[in-house]
Amino acid sequence: MNNGVQWQLQRINTPELRAVAKVESSLVKGARKYFDAQGFTEVIVPHLTKATGACENVDTLFAVDFFGEQAYLTQTGQLYLESLVPAMGKVYCIGPSFRAEEEADARHLCEFPLLEIEFPGDLNQLMAHIEGTVVSMVKEALAERRQELESVGADAARLEGISAPFKKVRYSDAVKIVGLEFGADLKSAHEAFLAHHFGDKPLFITHYPREIKFFNMRTNAADATLVNSTDLILPFGGEAVGSAEREWDYTILREKLSTSPMLKQLEKRGGSIKDFDWYLDNMREHGSVPHAGCGIGLNRVTQFVLGKQDIRHCTAFPLNCETLL
Amino acid sequence: MNNGVQWQLQRINTPELRAVAKVESSLVKGARKYFDAQGFTEVIVPHLTKATGACENVDTLFAVDFFGEQAYLTQTGQLYLESLVPAMGKVYCIGPSFRAEEEADARHLCEFPLLEIEFPGDLNQLMAHIEGTVVSMVKEALAERRQELESVGADAARLEGISAPFKKVRYSDAVKIVGLEFGADLKSAHEAFLAHHFGDKPLFITHYPREIKFFNMRTNAADATLVNSTDLILPFGGEAVGSAEREWDYTILREKLSTSPMLKQLEKRGGSIKDFDWYLDNMREHGSVPHAGCGIGLNRVTQFVLGKQDIRHCTAFPLNCETLL
Repeated sequence: MNNGVQWQLQRINTPELRAVAKVESSLVKGARKYFDAQGFTEVIVPHLTKATGACENVDTLFAVDFFGEQAYLTQTGQLYLESLVPAMGKVYCIGPSFRAEEEADARHLCEFPLLEIEFPGDLNQLMAHIEGTVVSMVKEALAERRQELESVGADAARLEGISAPFKKVRYSDAVKIVGLEFGADLKSAHEAFLAHHFGDKPLFITHYPREIKFFNMRTNAADATLVNSTDLILPFGGEAVGSAEREWDYTILREKLSTSPMLKQLEKRGGSIKDFDWYLDNMREHGSVPHAGCGIGLNRVTQFVLGKQDIRHCTAFPLNCETLL
Repeated sequence: MNNGVQWQLQRINTPELRAVAKVESSLVKGARKYFDAQGFTEVIVPHLTKATGACENVDTLFAVDFFGEQAYLTQTGQLYLESLVPAMGKVYCIGPSFRAEEEADARHLCEFPLLEIEFPGDLNQLMAHIEGTVVSMVKEALAERRQELESVGADAARLEGISAPFKKVRYSDAVKIVGLEFGADLKSAHEAFLAHHFGDKPLFITHYPREIKFFNMRTNAADATLVNSTDLILPFGGEAVGSAEREWDYTILREKLSTSPMLKQLEKRGGSIKDFDWYLDNMREHGSVPHAGCGIGLNRVTQFVLGKQDIRHCTAFPLNCETLL
């Protein structure tokens, strides 16, 4: 039995694990309350898919032999939700996102719950929904779990100060602040610096370069090098939310996918654009509507709420390459 | 593109799919309402596990290479929930259950949401919780989705007649009614006959033979050939819930596992009892408490609510060997 599993066995009956699990349950409940109040419908999406279940990093897909077909464990339900927006409007899903992260560290898990919404709307409405969701999560934890928060050393006063709107900085300004060139990836140390710089509160970084983001993010009308996207950075948690307006014009979308770094990665793994046939065919045949959406990494929000640097302490059964149970 | 995927593409923008998805969301909401009102805490469990994520049928596990370790997609979160009962009391989880079903048919999916509870208590309390959950699910669908139910031809009057307590029949009596010997498996045709025989309403079949059930079901005190288990049979849906008191004595449990057909199946696949080390070690070191639990297959409840014979029509993205998206 390896160290990670032994560590987990020592935790399993502790008051700390109980407190963390109870806070986590309230965070999910708070998110659902917001989604339900705003008229989102929960949709059950598949978690065993073709490459349409991948986020931008195809290299971290877990492969599964599906009766001779190449399948993967989903990283996101985004494209499945998107396909329902024309018929259903506001939709959400909450379920596991899988990432084959080879390192066991304080920031990454191989499985974590992702809270995802898609809806007819734009970037401003999207940021309002993210603010509303995160505030509702924090509020529910404060309402239901004050004792548990205290017992694990979380700072309730800090959480009470969290309210909408969150601060916003454009990517092009953010890179200047941390001394990077336009086009560079913001690493977690940069994000932590920026969150601190802007007052140790949730911070939106907006309008990322198109090159470094998911293929179907909508290009900015004023500057074609940018996409209408935003990541939410949280103190302790770092990048907790990725989000964007989605391209909804079939021809543009197909072109974007064909030339995306993601597709090149997929082809290296033996995949092809054919995996996207159902998604593209559906859009071509039925059309789409302007829409936007996000994915909220639950454990990153839990880190923020608990004030913990180590994500492994923020859920009952953290899964990394050392803790398979 | 195969027939199953084409069928799905034709459905995706239809009012029927929208209605079904909306009913499904209300069913999940109704279950959560019951769990929350009864003081259950939602727990996030892993879905990529060792054999402790298997139900009794090891042959239908999907295998995943987890950094060189043999992992599986979970069929149940039961053992993970059970490990938290001593510290947390009433717990539940809602998430995907994976089954490598080789046939695409009207009764089976390769992935479906399973609603699972574990709590300190016995078979009678368990049946009351199952009744409460199913009634709350039906009630929520009636409250929120009357129009959608009508639009897909569901019989609201039939649903309004559903209330606790449900009828109960012992397995030993049930096999006599359908003309089988004690020890035989009740097939879906037998279950459908029994549900009809007892008034076309939800029906508990209790006290199954120990031999044909999951290793950790608790042996009946009066008759050691039986376990304190119950399955809930629903009109249209068939077996929708499996449940039992769990063995909580370490020595008995270890013996039961060692001699179980499940372990033999696992060994044939190259696995061993070592996969259960964490579960057994935890119970040996920390002890357990008398507890019970169940797993509710969402889509089988949806079949019952919609009055549909074909499970593929009861969710937005039904996954079988022909419909991988």
